[in-house]
Parts: sequence; structure tokens; C-alpha cells
Amino acid sequence: MSKDLFRKELAKFQPYVPGKPIEEVKREYGLDRIEKLASNENQLGPSPMAVDAIIKAVQEINFYPEATAYELKRELAADLGVEEENLVIGNGGEELIQVIAQTFINEGDEVIVASPSFGIYNTTVGLLGGVIHSIPFKNNQYDFEGMLGKVNEKTKLIYVCSPNNPTGNIVTKKELDALLDALPEDVTVIMDEAYYEFAVANPDYPDSIAILKNRPNMVILRTFSKVSGIAGVRIGYVITSERIAGEMNKIKLTFDVNRLAQEAARGALKDKEYTKKTVALTKESIDRMEAYFEKQGLDYIKSYANFVFVDCKLHSKTMFEELMKRGVIVRPGYFWGWDNWIRVSTGTLEQTQFFLEKLEEVMEGIQ
Amino acid sequence: MSKDLFRKELAKFQPYVPGKPIEEVKREYGLDRIEKLASNENQLGPSPMAVDAIIKAVQEINFYPEATAYELKRELAADLGVEEENLVIGNGGEELIQVIAQTFINEGDEVIVASPSFGIYNTTVGLLGGVIHSIPFKNNQYDFEGMLGKVNEKTKLIYVCSPNNPTGNIVTKKELDALLDALPEDVTVIMDEAYYEFAVANPDYPDSIAILKNRPNMVILRTFSKVSGIAGVRIGYVITSERIAGEMNKIKLTFDVNRLAQEAARGALKDKEYTKKTVALTKESIDRMEAYFEKQGLDYIKSYANFVFVDCKLHSKTMFEELMKRGVIVRPGYFWGWDNWIRVSTGTLEQTQFFLEKLEEVMEGIQ
Repeated sequence: MSKDLFRKELAKFQPYVPGKPIEEVKREYGLDRIEKLASNENQLGPSPMAVDAIIKAVQEINFYPEATAYELKRELAADLGVEEENLVIGNGGEELIQVIAQTFINEGDEVIVASPSFGIYNTTVGLLGGVIHSIPFKNNQYDFEGMLGKVNEKTKLIYVCSPNNPTGNIVTKKELDALLDALPEDVTVIMDEAYYEFAVANPDYPDSIAILKNRPNMVILRTFSKVSGIAGVRIGYVITSERIAGEMNKIKLTFDVNRLAQEAARGALKDKEYTKKTVALTKESIDRMEAYFEKQGLDYIKSYANFVFVDCKLHSKTMFEELMKRGVIVRPGYFWGWDNWIRVSTGTLEQTQFFLEKLEEVMEGIQ
Repeated sequence: MSKDLFRKELAKFQPYVPGKPIEEVKREYGLDRIEKLASNENQLGPSPMAVDAIIKAVQEINFYPEATAYELKRELAADLGVEEENLVIGNGGEELIQVIAQTFINEGDEVIVASPSFGIYNTTVGLLGGVIHSIPFKNNQYDFEGMLGKVNEKTKLIYVCSPNNPTGNIVTKKELDALLDALPEDVTVIMDEAYYEFAVANPDYPDSIAILKNRPNMVILRTFSKVSGIAGVRIGYVITSERIAGEMNKIKLTFDVNRLAQEAARGALKDKEYTKKTVALTKESIDRMEAYFEKQGLDYIKSYANFVFVDCKLHSKTMFEELMKRGVIVRPGYFWGWDNWIRVSTGTLEQTQFFLEKLEEVMEGIQ
């Protein structure tokens, strides 16, 4: 028989290439110290209240998780000023992005994304046979005109990541208002705010929950991975209209969000002190990196997140390797087609300093 | 515009109806004691070595999980006598069942399932537009003739759950051999062995890993949820050909399996003592229930799992409610169209005794 074994969309799929485990890099390069500033993790560690909540719950892991995340939803809704029916809890933002595609995309449906942006939008839509229009940045910012130019009667979704990964810039209130004015009501806007807490103090940052009340076809995505430092347990959430939340909750897996993640998130939600501390330290680290880039005349994009995207005037594959040899792991920009750029996560001030010293060493060696 | 907001398959989807949280049932019925024997959980608690592993890893949850589950795969492959390339690790069996559908099913592709069996097969295939042939049990066992009768050139998958959920019966070596002989090579067999450890001592239970070596289009599914008592952290695995594992690993989410689940599974894998203890206690509990059913003349299906399916001669909706009022939660069979049957999980001997007393109370009240 000549029938295909696999789903046809798999042929187009690029396999994920994981980074090497740190212990292996250490051995291979004979290093004592490695700082991984590649995944926008919270280098302060996890929220202590999240850790306490896990330890308290660990003897009950023989029971399945609460399928509806009952307690967490109640507390999160109160914290955000929305109803529980507006929430979808997921196994990290990554799963929620998959559920978004599963909720909206049939074969041939079209979506609009910016480039560079978070790659999971493309893979999840692509797996369902959706058509992706990828609109390059213009002058290092979103090209909304170009994105709007791709809207047609088949357009289902437009993805707006703000602060954007990997560039760190935000979409301002004014820009978002203009986009929404020009966009048909039946195109659903996916507002990825995974880095929300780092940007919200900026007066230009839009209040997406307020906007949602008049623009129900909008899905706001946030996470406990970044500011609360619990990426390892996997938990994120969506705020959207009751109608969209109902469909997403209907189709997502029953036991996707593990028991310890639900408890950790409840702890993290109460740990406002930790959020404050993380945001303050992140800003210091960003300021220090940006000041250094200014001094060195390196082009970078002003960041409102816990990472910064910088043009290091050298192919990022080389820069990645040279930095790794010296004990720093960053994310090379060539993954996104930005060959000479790297994305560096904030660390403690000491880690940030270590990165800047190693960067200088590499750049001096090259000149 | 008249375009549909959502993916067309959603209209057919039945929303999940979660059970009430135990605390709410207690309040509502004024109960002090509730035994939930509805989800085939390990009532002994979690494997102590799994718990220790979690506590050891909890301070590192600010880091994303190891995307490839590197250490766990190495240890699990050695334990099973397969290669790491034969393994796929997932966020519980439920996610792996979803990944199976995503790997194989395009719109119009056909699958064959038994009824009653695990409902997630149908929902994950249905979401992708697959066509499901559901073949009812015959004489309380798989009707393989009926299932084979549905095979045609569009058939992609056949699901065999053994021990079967919710009935607890196994597919014997002889039955599986006959099925595989009659089945075209390009139909992939999904062997769901979530309850493997409870059945493997039976000499008729097939060695699916040995069969896989000559029958590569086979996917064996197992889990740490049941025998290791870590359902709450979500971790299961697939053993399959390198080719199928490669495709499944390629498309599944990068950070689906949380850090604590990976560590818990590594702990549980070493905890052979706990597996032995759980299997022994489960058998005692099954024996006690089956002896009672025999004595009462209740029809039941001989179980090789940690639950038993029994005809309680009363609509299972009524039986469910009457038992709940008395502090026992079971799974009613009408969900599967078996109106008078209930599925009861094994508990500690004390819990099992409590269930049997309450069952007797209800049945005496009815007569």
C-alpha cells in the first residue's frame, strides 16, 4: 500500500534542536563556571512562596490535578479583576499557544505574525495546516501597516507579542488602538504578554484587560514562568472573553496542568514582594547592559523585558560559540534570520557583569 | 462577515464535566469521610523516592525543564532494555494520546476503537477530523472480528487498551498475535498499557516490547501515574520504533514535561519496592471485591488492573449518587453507555471494605 504513515503536515516540520545540558558543556570545554543567559529565566530562583506551596502539596501527588484549577482560578480572577469564566489555565504559555491554534485554525485559515517573534506561533498553526504570513520588522519595530496589508477574509488570528520575544520592545497603547481600529472584529488578536510584569510600569503600555471588555475577540496570554521564577513547573494563563475561554477549556486536555504547578502559582500570586524584587533587579541589569552597548556603539533594541537583543557585529553563530567557550550561553539571532544579533537574558548583576566582560573579550579578540 | 470564529471540529465536541471537589461534596452532604475511588489513583500515596526527588529539585524550578528529558530517557531505556531513540516522554498519558493523533491523523483518516474504552482516543482523533469506528464489546470482551471488519485503506490506527479502562480485562498473547496477523502492516497499533504493572505477572499477558522489534508500526503507552502514585505531577511515556518516536518527539511541545515530574519519575523508576507493594495490595483489594461480587451474584469483568467494572443492577447515575451520599465516589458506567455498571478503583483494604459496606447498604435499601 502507498498510503502515508504520518499526518501530511509533519513533512514540513523542523525538529527542535535542544541546547546541550550545562554539565556537558562544562566537560567539553573544561569550564568551572557557566552562566546560561539563554532562556529568560529568573536568576534569583523561584518565588519562595511558590516553593513552600509545592512542599506542602507534595504528599498528595498520587491524586490527579484538579481539572478546572478551581482554587487557582478563583484567586487569579480576583487578583486580575475578571471572572473565572474569562480564564484558561495551561501547561505553560506554550501549551496555551497550541490550544489557541486548536481552537481557531482549520486547514487554509490564515494568520499574521511578526518576524522576529516567538516561533511557537508558527509551529502550532503550521501543524494544523494554517497559512502563516510573517511580516518582517521595519526599523527594528513591528510593521503594523505591513501586517494589516495581509488581512483578508481568511484571516483568523494576528499575533502581537509585547514585550516581544526576542526583541524586548513593546506595542504602545496608541499603536494597539490604531491596529484594533483598522482590524475587522472577527480577526482574533493574540496578545502575548508573557513579559507583562516587566513592562507594565511604562505609561505607554496598554491595559489589555480593559480593552478586552469592548473587543471580545482577543486572547491575552500571561505566565508565572518569568517574573515568579517557576518556569520549571509549567503554568501560564489566558484572559479572554467568556465565549473563547469556554471553547479553549472545552478542547484542552483534562489533566494538562499538574498539581504542584497549580499550588506553586497560588503561592506565587501572593508573593507580590518577589515580583517587585525581580522587576527591580531586572531593570538594573537591563540598564547596565544598555549603557555598555551605548558606550561601545552597539545597535540594540530598547528592552522592556528580562532580556535584550543586540547587534554584536559578528555572526551570532560565532559569537554564540566564542561566548560558550568562555562560560556564557546566549541565544543566537540567526535562528530568527537576524544573523549578527544575540538575545541575552538578564542575570544577577554579577552574572550580567560576567557576560559583559566575556562579550568584550570576544569583541577585542576579533578586532 | 459570516466566517466561523472557531475551528469547525469544535461544534461536535462534548465539554468535560468535572466531578465536584471533595471539600464541596463534604459540605453539601454533611459528610466527615469521603473515599474517592473514581480515578484509579494509588491510595497508598506517592512513591517515597519520587517525593524525595521532587524535594531535592524544587529550588531549581526557575529553570525550564530539560526539553529532551535527557537523564530520565537514559535511565528508562536501560530499565526497559530499549534505546533512548525508542522513547517519547509526555505530560501524562493523556498528552501522549494527543500527540499520537497529531502524528498520524489528517481529516478523513479512520481509526478503530473498542467500546467501552478510554475516551481520550476519540476526542483527540475527533479534534483533527478523523473518523472513529467504535466497536462494542461482545460477551464483555474485545470483539476483534468486528474491529478487523472495519479495516480499509483509510485505516491509520487501531487502539488496544490492555488492561482495558474501564473494564480491567487484558488482551492475551494469543489474541494479540491473531490480531497482528490479520492486520495490514501500515495500520499502527496503539497498545495502551497504562495499567501494565498490575497485569504483567499474568502468563497470558503479551510482551509488547518484544513484539515491537518485528512490528515497528506499534506504539506502546505506559505511565508513572498509576503504580508509582504520581498522577498529580503528570508523566507518561511511549515505547515505539525509532521512526515513529522521531516524528512524535519532533512535533510535541518543547517544555511539556515539567522539571519535577522528570525528577519524580527518575525516583519512581528506582523504587521497585514501592511497585511491588502497590501491586500486592491492589491484588488483595481486587480479590476482596471480586469475592464479594461472586457472593452477591453480581456480574463483573475479571480485572487485571487497579479497578473493577461491575453490574450493580441499578442505573449507575442513581448508584453514583447513593454512594456519594454515603461518602464513596465511583465512576458511573453510563458515561460509556453501560448504564447499570460502575467502575470502582482499588483502595487500601480499609477503603475497599468501606466501599463494599456502602454498596451493600444501597443495594439492600433498593430491594
